[in-house]
Amino acid sequence: MTREEADALDRDDPLRGVRTAFDLPGGVLYLDGNSLGPPPRPALAASRACADEEWRSGLVRSWNEAGWIALPKRAGAKIARLIGVSAEDVIVCDSVSVNLFKLAGALLARRPGRALAVFGDEFPTDQYVLEGLSALTGAPLLRLREGETFPERSVVVRSLVHYKTAAVADMAASERTAAACGADLIWDLSHATGVLALNLSRDGARFAVGCGYKYLNGGPGAPAFLHVRADEAAALRQPIAGWMGAKTPFDFSSVYEPAGGVARFAAGTPPILSLSALNAALDIFDGLDLPSLERKARALGDMFLTAGEAAGLIPIRVAGRRGGHVAFRHPDGYTIVQALIARGVIGDFRAPDILRFGFSPLYLSYGDVWQAGEILQGVMARGEFHDPAFARRSTVT
Amino acid sequence: MTREEADALDRDDPLRGVRTAFDLPGGVLYLDGNSLGPPPRPALAASRACADEEWRSGLVRSWNEAGWIALPKRAGAKIARLIGVSAEDVIVCDSVSVNLFKLAGALLARRPGRALAVFGDEFPTDQYVLEGLSALTGAPLLRLREGETFPERSVVVRSLVHYKTAAVADMAASERTAAACGADLIWDLSHATGVLALNLSRDGARFAVGCGYKYLNGGPGAPAFLHVRADEAAALRQPIAGWMGAKTPFDFSSVYEPAGGVARFAAGTPPILSLSALNAALDIFDGLDLPSLERKARALGDMFLTAGEAAGLIPIRVAGRRGGHVAFRHPDGYTIVQALIARGVIGDFRAPDILRFGFSPLYLSYGDVWQAGEILQGVMARGEFHDPAFARRSTVT
Repeated sequence: MTREEADALDRDDPLRGVRTAFDLPGGVLYLDGNSLGPPPRPALAASRACADEEWRSGLVRSWNEAGWIALPKRAGAKIARLIGVSAEDVIVCDSVSVNLFKLAGALLARRPGRALAVFGDEFPTDQYVLEGLSALTGAPLLRLREGETFPERSVVVRSLVHYKTAAVADMAASERTAAACGADLIWDLSHATGVLALNLSRDGARFAVGCGYKYLNGGPGAPAFLHVRADEAAALRQPIAGWMGAKTPFDFSSVYEPAGGVARFAAGTPPILSLSALNAALDIFDGLDLPSLERKARALGDMFLTAGEAAGLIPIRVAGRRGGHVAFRHPDGYTIVQALIARGVIGDFRAPDILRFGFSPLYLSYGDVWQAGEILQGVMARGEFHDPAFARRSTVT
Repeated sequence: MTREEADALDRDDPLRGVRTAFDLPGGVLYLDGNSLGPPPRPALAASRACADEEWRSGLVRSWNEAGWIALPKRAGAKIARLIGVSAEDVIVCDSVSVNLFKLAGALLARRPGRALAVFGDEFPTDQYVLEGLSALTGAPLLRLREGETFPERSVVVRSLVHYKTAAVADMAASERTAAACGADLIWDLSHATGVLALNLSRDGARFAVGCGYKYLNGGPGAPAFLHVRADEAAALRQPIAGWMGAKTPFDFSSVYEPAGGVARFAAGTPPILSLSALNAALDIFDGLDLPSLERKARALGDMFLTAGEAAGLIPIRVAGRRGGHVAFRHPDGYTIVQALIARGVIGDFRAPDILRFGFSPLYLSYGDVWQAGEILQGVMARGEFHDPAFARRSTVT
């Protein structure tokens, strides 16, 4: 593709206006929104208002007057639209790890004696959380292989988008399999929400968790979300019975009575500065067409896969749908990512040899991706990644 | 006490300079720092820098370059000094509810077959969390009465400062009792940290959790802390085995290996905007003498107890040490608190009839408390609380 062809795609892009909602730093082509999304302007404004006005001036009164107490539900309702469920069936709280624990624990308690199950190449925290829950309760934990079916009556955690390859599981087919063997599926939508056209209601998915800081751009470590379909919630008691999930927390009664619906999955007091930023960040999705988001992310990723392959990286191509990122393998993956960062192209590395690049359709243009491809090809052609300055050190991306 | 006497006390107050670290709104006498502390200026500055610079410009690089990844330990080390334990034995993460669950769950798993125990007038979330853990694991939950000893080999959760009365438990004596019956005590220091001179090492306390948003002024819903004494940590596996508590999270291995020490009690990705504010807020304790904080809080509370009693409220006096707040009873407690808020004196109400007022020694002067007492007496004398505008509605304070 030529620069002119990329620019032509940008001119026709129905999403091109969304970029102005972001305050991106200069000199950077940001291909890591799959790890941490950049701040939408409303999120920065909300963060400042929350600290400088609501906290500083409103003080404790802001729980009511600034609506802090309602933020978990308000932000949840905005996410509900993005995953295709009823507005009242999503709550924002805690982290993905804690939410997985609560949901898997509640499903385990509903029908004692069942096993937990997870695929062996699943994102580590999803595996670890089930391992911890298994150790605490004695429920067996089964690690599944690719293509293996779900154990009878088990509680299964599964990512919709694989964190390395971006392969997308078939949600509807998985749910049919689960129904046939009496399993309950918990979907981890961390790498899917905000970039794929999701419709959990249509696909029969009843339980899900997901991340607020990737394609939702809610800020570093933004609170996570949790979905339980309304008809399932009443029968579930989640194990971390904190006061914010109680029916009437301010009655200060000694005995826990859970709130109705998904609200019972809240636990402690939420981190309001972080939650306010996420709540405001979600507003940029207002009115956006989800299939358009998915199509553009796919097109941007395809462009970069072609550029990367031409530059000498080994593309990981997936059959069927793909999440918002693409991955390559290369034995020098770590140093190549560092060399790219030095040139302003920010991607990330996943051990042992995976280079990942994320393509948020909200703020990336075809021109950006064309330019990132040129930089990648230059870095590879000149062997810049051999510079000892890029040698491996402890890192978090 | 006269205004002049109060002013004289302020002139002699060794803590009077600390107030300048706070950016308090005008027209308010803030007696609710026991519920939500006001923002120290460094916390507001850190909040802004975290959003506008670290997130906006640094993007994902800030996990390393701005030190986000180290914040749970950095903030923990600052809290460690306030509770009298080693700097490396405290971590900041999650909420008090979640931390109680993790710690009680880890202690339960270490010696299966033991019971959980909590006093029946304990803060609700402390009771609820044990109730949830009991339901999940089958461990019996015993509710203790005042003065009752701990069940043999039990895991007991206990607040050091009672959330209503501010009565302070005898930590050293409780630990001796626990040792005699093989119980493990988890202290909830939510209403104690930052206002009492704590020394857990001296008193033999090995396990504690506490709140970041009360006397630590970390912001609304600020992350909580968790302490485990180093010699106990290695034998404990906490149930919410999230990746941030793993030894090497970025190796992406399938099997959880916990980090060393208290760091294994971390779970998911922490909410960085909220955590940055707390981390900066803690700096105002640098060099402050903890016994001076406790003495001043006591003196301010005593002043207000006297004023409240003179105004017609029924003071709840406690024998021995007292936390940073004082409490009164009055059948019109709710409306009296509302009438005071309308006059700029912010306290809070706890059902069914408790008025609470907190006395942070960091930003309140004797003159402030004298003035608050005058306003209270005026509100009571004029019967302002009978105004229908102050009638009860759903509220959070």
